[in-house]
Amino acid sequence: MPKYRVPKGFRDFPPEIMILRKKVIETVEKIFIRYGFDPLETPVLEYWETLKGKYGEEVENKLIYKFQDPWSKVWLALRYDLTVPLARFVASQMLTLPFKRYHISRVWRHESPQKGRYREFWQCDVDIIGSPYPESDAEIINIILDIMSAFNFTRYTIRVSDRRLLAGIFEEELGLREYGKERMLAIFRAIDKLDKIGIDGVRRELEKLELSSDEIERIVDIISIRGNYNDILSEVNSRFPNNENVKLAVRHLEEMFDFINNRKYVVLDLSLVRGLDYYTGPIFETYVEEPKIGSLTGGGRYDDLIRRYGGPDLPATGTTIGIERIIDAGLELGLFGLNKKTYTVAYIVCIDRELYRYCWEIANRLRSAGIPTQIDLMRRKQRKQREYSEKKNIPFVIFIGHKEKESGKLTVYDREKQKRYEKLTIDETIELLKQCVDIPCF
Amino acid sequence: MPKYRVPKGFRDFPPEIMILRKKVIETVEKIFIRYGFDPLETPVLEYWETLKGKYGEEVENKLIYKFQDPWSKVWLALRYDLTVPLARFVASQMLTLPFKRYHISRVWRHESPQKGRYREFWQCDVDIIGSPYPESDAEIINIILDIMSAFNFTRYTIRVSDRRLLAGIFEEELGLREYGKERMLAIFRAIDKLDKIGIDGVRRELEKLELSSDEIERIVDIISIRGNYNDILSEVNSRFPNNENVKLAVRHLEEMFDFINNRKYVVLDLSLVRGLDYYTGPIFETYVEEPKIGSLTGGGRYDDLIRRYGGPDLPATGTTIGIERIIDAGLELGLFGLNKKTYTVAYIVCIDRELYRYCWEIANRLRSAGIPTQIDLMRRKQRKQREYSEKKNIPFVIFIGHKEKESGKLTVYDREKQKRYEKLTIDETIELLKQCVDIPCF
Repeated sequence: MPKYRVPKGFRDFPPEIMILRKKVIETVEKIFIRYGFDPLETPVLEYWETLKGKYGEEVENKLIYKFQDPWSKVWLALRYDLTVPLARFVASQMLTLPFKRYHISRVWRHESPQKGRYREFWQCDVDIIGSPYPESDAEIINIILDIMSAFNFTRYTIRVSDRRLLAGIFEEELGLREYGKERMLAIFRAIDKLDKIGIDGVRRELEKLELSSDEIERIVDIISIRGNYNDILSEVNSRFPNNENVKLAVRHLEEMFDFINNRKYVVLDLSLVRGLDYYTGPIFETYVEEPKIGSLTGGGRYDDLIRRYGGPDLPATGTTIGIERIIDAGLELGLFGLNKKTYTVAYIVCIDRELYRYCWEIANRLRSAGIPTQIDLMRRKQRKQREYSEKKNIPFVIFIGHKEKESGKLTVYDREKQKRYEKLTIDETIELLKQCVDIPCF
Repeated sequence: MPKYRVPKGFRDFPPEIMILRKKVIETVEKIFIRYGFDPLETPVLEYWETLKGKYGEEVENKLIYKFQDPWSKVWLALRYDLTVPLARFVASQMLTLPFKRYHISRVWRHESPQKGRYREFWQCDVDIIGSPYPESDAEIINIILDIMSAFNFTRYTIRVSDRRLLAGIFEEELGLREYGKERMLAIFRAIDKLDKIGIDGVRRELEKLELSSDEIERIVDIISIRGNYNDILSEVNSRFPNNENVKLAVRHLEEMFDFINNRKYVVLDLSLVRGLDYYTGPIFETYVEEPKIGSLTGGGRYDDLIRRYGGPDLPATGTTIGIERIIDAGLELGLFGLNKKTYTVAYIVCIDRELYRYCWEIANRLRSAGIPTQIDLMRRKQRKQREYSEKKNIPFVIFIGHKEKESGKLTVYDREKQKRYEKLTIDETIELLKQCVDIPCF
C-alpha cells in the first residue's frame, strides 16, 4: 500500500495511458482545427461569483469544489465546465465574430467515482459565438460525425432535438405558456433523467410536479417520438401550425439537417432535453450502442448565456466531446490499445563500456535527425540493456561494438519484423527509423 | 470594465497567445521525446499531507493554495511543482528503470503577480529516475542546450554547481560538519537570495545565522568563484584532497562535463545553491543576459526525495523548463511574435448566397484533405466575408462565384504574396495550401 495516494476520484496517468490519451486528444484537436477553430485556455480557478447561479442548486451545492482563498478570503471554485469560462471571456472582450474556439482541458466535479466518471476529467469543447444560423449547429454536428468516424465508431446515434420544439408542443398539449420559465424547466429536468431512472421513474418525477395522470401520459407519448426527422417535423408542423416555438424549431432543424454531412447517424428524439437550463435551441447528444456508458458528446445552442455575463446579446452553439468516455468505450470495443509504452524508436546497445563515448555521439546524431533515441544511463551490461529495450517494447535496437565503430556502420534489429540489418550507414539507419516515428507534434 | 474577471495573477489565453504557447510547448516536448522521455500526468489536487514538509515553512505558509474538501473536510492543495507529484508517483509503482518522464502542466503559487511571475503557470519538467551517474545529469543539460538553441537564444549561460562541492568547502573552511543538516541548509538558503538581494544582502542574512565576520567573508570569497570548470575543479581538488564531499563532487562534475555537448554555454558558479532543500548533487540554472527575468530553467540531482515518499532508494535528476519566462524573454528579444491569429489556412468567400451549398461542399473537400478551412456562418455579403478573413489574417482566400461553380475551378488569393491564382482545380488548390499548414500535431 503506497504511503501517499491521489485523492479519491483523481488519477495518475502513466506513460502508456498518456500516449493513448494524447493520440485521442490530437485526433479531436485536428478535426477542430480543420473546421477553423482556434485554441483558448482559461484558469482552473474562477471566482465563485462567476459560477454561482449558472448551473442550478444541485450542481452548486453537491458538485462544485469551492473554497476560500487562504489569504484574501474571497471564494474561489474549480471550474465545473468550459462553457461558463467561455461566456465570461467572451463577455469581457471585443472579438471578431464569429468567434470559433476550442478548449481542451480539465474540469472538476464532486461525483461518486465510477466507470467513465471521475472527479477530475478532461473535456474537449468546441463552440461558435456570434452566429444564430442553423449552419453553425450543423457544423458542430459534422465535427461530431468526423470525430466518431476518425475513431472508427460505427454503431452510434446522434440524438437531436430542440428546446423550442418540445416547449411548443407542451404549450399546445398541456396549456403551458411559459417556455423558459421554471415549470417548463422542471419538466425538462424530470425528462432528462430518463436514461438514469427509466420511463416509470420519469412518471414519478412528473407526479411530484403535480401534473395530472392524463398530462403525464401525454408527455410520455410526446417524448416517445423518435425517428426520421423529415416525417416527425412535418407531422408536428401540420398539427401545430400556429405555435411560434414549433415554427421556429421546425424551420431551424430543417435547415440544419440540410447541412449535416452524414444523416444516417442522426435521429430526432423528443426525449432529449439536456440537463442544464441555458439551452435555447437545437440540442444534441451522441450514444454508442455498446458499451452502456452514457453520452459521448453533449451540446446545443445557448443564445442567452453571454448576456448573463454582462456581454452583448450573442448567439452561441457548441458541444463537449467527452474524451474520457470515448477512451473508456474505445478501449472496451477494442478500437484503442495500450500497447505503445514509449515514444522511443531506437535503443542503442553499447556492447563495450569503452565504446560508450562513441555510442553517445551516435545517439546525438539520431536525436538531431528527429529519432527518439535512448542510450544506457545505468552502466549496465549488454544483456541488461537489451532487456530494458524489450520491456519498453522499443521498436529498433542498434548494436554498437568494436566492429561497428571501426566500420562506421551499424547493426540494427527491427523488433516487430524480427529482422536484422547489418552494416547500415547512419543515414540509412535514420531513413529506416524515420518511418516509425509516431509521436505528437511531428 | 467587465462584470466578471479572472482571479488576480491568473490569465486567460486568447487564440493568438495560445498559438504561440502551443508552439513553444511543442518545441520543448519534441526535444524531450527525442531524448527518450515519455509523458506523465498527475492530478492538480494533492492531499495536503503529500506536500507538507517538502518545501520549507515559507513556501508552505505563504505560497501553497490549500483548502478543506467541502464534503470530507480532508485538506487538499493545488500542486506547487511537478517534482513532488513525480516522487509520490514513483514511490507507489514498480517501474522499469531508468524511468524517464516529462510532465508539461500547470502549478500554482501565491506569488505577488509581476512580469514573468504568475499565480497559475505552466512548467515543463523532465526527470530521470534510477540513475546515479553523471551521464544522466549531462543528458538533462544537453536537453537544456537543445531547447535554448531551438528558440535561437544566443546570449545565455547555464550555471552549474554541486551541493557537495560547496558543502565540502564549507566543511573545510568553516569547520561545519553537517552537510545536509539544518545549519548548512540555512547558509544555502541565504546564498540563494543573492540574485534578489545582492552580496551585501547575503552578508546580512549570514549575520542573522550568527556567523563571524571572518566566516562571512570566507563564504563570500568562495561563492564568488566562477569560470572554467577545469581550472576550478582542479584547484579545489588540490586544496582539499581529503574531503569526501569535494572528492565526490569533483569526480561527478568532471565526468558530467565530459558528456555535455556544447560546453561554451556552461560555467561552474559556486554562488549557485538552489532554494529547495532536496538537492543532493549537481544543480543547474539557465540565465539570459537580457532581459533580466530570473532563471529560465532550474534543476539538479535529488537522490533522497523518493525514499521520503516511502519508495525505494532511487537516485534522480532533472530540470524544469520555465516556459513562462522563455515566452516573456523570447517576446522581448523578438524571437517570438504574436502575428499568427489563427490556424485557419483557407477562407471561402461565397459570392452569391445561391452558391452556399456548393461552397459548403468545397469546404468539406478541403477539410477532408487536412486544410483548416472556414466558410461564412453569418450570412454576410461578400465584402464582409473578405473583411473577416483580413482581420483574422487568414493566408488564403478562395472565391467561389457562378464562374467558379460552372467551371469546377477555383480562384485563390495568396494574402502574403499578394498573388491571385485563377482556374485552379481543387486538387491543385489543396497542393498549394498544404505547404502553409503549420499547426500542432500535423
